[in-house]
Amino acid sequence: MTYCVGLRLKQGLVFLADTRTNAGVDHVSRYRKLFTWRVPGERALALMTAGNLSITQGVVTRLNRAIKRDVAGEGGDGDEETILNADSLYRVAQIVGEAMFEQQQRDRAGLEAEGASSDASLILGGQRRGGRHRLFLIYSAGNFIEATSDTPYFQIGEFKYGKPILDRVVESDTPIEEALQAAFVSMDSTLRSNLSVGMPLDLAVIREGQFGDLTQRRITSDDEDFARISSGWSQALREAFDRLPSASG
Amino acid sequence: MTYCVGLRLKQGLVFLADTRTNAGVDHVSRYRKLFTWRVPGERALALMTAGNLSITQGVVTRLNRAIKRDVAGEGGDGDEETILNADSLYRVAQIVGEAMFEQQQRDRAGLEAEGASSDASLILGGQRRGGRHRLFLIYSAGNFIEATSDTPYFQIGEFKYGKPILDRVVESDTPIEEALQAAFVSMDSTLRSNLSVGMPLDLAVIREGQFGDLTQRRITSDDEDFARISSGWSQALREAFDRLPSASG
Repeated sequence: MTYCVGLRLKQGLVFLADTRTNAGVDHVSRYRKLFTWRVPGERALALMTAGNLSITQGVVTRLNRAIKRDVAGEGGDGDEETILNADSLYRVAQIVGEAMFEQQQRDRAGLEAEGASSDASLILGGQRRGGRHRLFLIYSAGNFIEATSDTPYFQIGEFKYGKPILDRVVESDTPIEEALQAAFVSMDSTLRSNLSVGMPLDLAVIREGQFGDLTQRRITSDDEDFARISSGWSQALREAFDRLPSASG
Repeated sequence: MTYCVGLRLKQGLVFLADTRTNAGVDHVSRYRKLFTWRVPGERALALMTAGNLSITQGVVTRLNRAIKRDVAGEGGDGDEETILNADSLYRVAQIVGEAMFEQQQRDRAGLEAEGASSDASLILGGQRRGGRHRLFLIYSAGNFIEATSDTPYFQIGEFKYGKPILDRVVESDTPIEEALQAAFVSMDSTLRSNLSVGMPLDLAVIREGQFGDLTQRRITSDDEDFARISSGWSQALREAFDRLPSASG
């Protein structure tokens, strides 16, 4: 499985993904599930993937091949509509949804004949110069929904373990630094409770209004920043628990 | 859905269950999922149920009918082996597992023909005079596993939201009062994150060595004890979160 969480805050977008994939406990491997694209000064995009790996790799390959064709084309930019030149984030989500639809058309019947699932889901977010920063959840059928101030986050994969802390802490107004803490705690809870979600993690942040700017880093198991949050949270939770009023049986 | 958690501690057994059942969002009702039996001075048993309601009601009915037949029998106690006279808790788990197996034999084919699932699971625990207190998880096939000091709790139904706190707090040595707090927090997290789990709750406690003794109460939405834990936990969690070291993006 997988756990990815994407947050849409007034201050920007946060993306956090694990890297473990498994098909049964004997087939555990590491695959990047967070992909980013930048056009400096113009736009930054991030995409996280969950579900059937052949489907999600196919979607990312389709997006990248279109970008390559566009760059290599006679007329340069604009020959082919891609996620890097589409004129709105909404249109970017449509292009990604279409890539999902096409990949499902290609593989679904074969997968189902084998008794395998072709289900996949994606979290896509970004901002282009002149537009708002937006976050989308894209389903297997290529349809999608957008995060709003009422629902400022999306999760894909093993989402349940890490949902309670997000429900309690994250709102649209939450500052990015606090949202990062919440995303780390949410991931930490999932890592502790579910073997199919594993380190290292990939983190990306797109701050509102910094067109084309994107910070990204890989968080390994010896990352001091993540370890401080993880152990700080364990300790704080234990102390919080010890201060609870008593319960009667 | 459902959420039930059962804990096996050195000091005794704790059972906490919600009461919401639903078949789609239009068919939401309230059903007891925690059942208890007592033979004063001799044994106390508690059973919690999740999954297909017709299956789990069938299992409970089978157990109770056997008890009635036994009481009404010519020779009184011992005419028929029941969960109240079986000579070990292990044998009680077998009897419940057999009731599950028979109920599945009766209904599974019909349910599957309708495209419905007959899956169900049970948490059974108790103590009889002369024996240890024991906790079992019983599956749809009637097979079962027992909680040990390494794995001191079982969950059935919507278990993921409420698992992280149990993983962090509950051990075999945990005192009952603390285990009650953990069970309440685990249930509270589930209630907040999943609509298909709902108040009121049913709580039962069987303390080690108090043969036949069992405390049980219903926790409604205006229960002050639960409300104090719930709001205390919200506040403590918020304070714990505010004290976290900062995260870098």
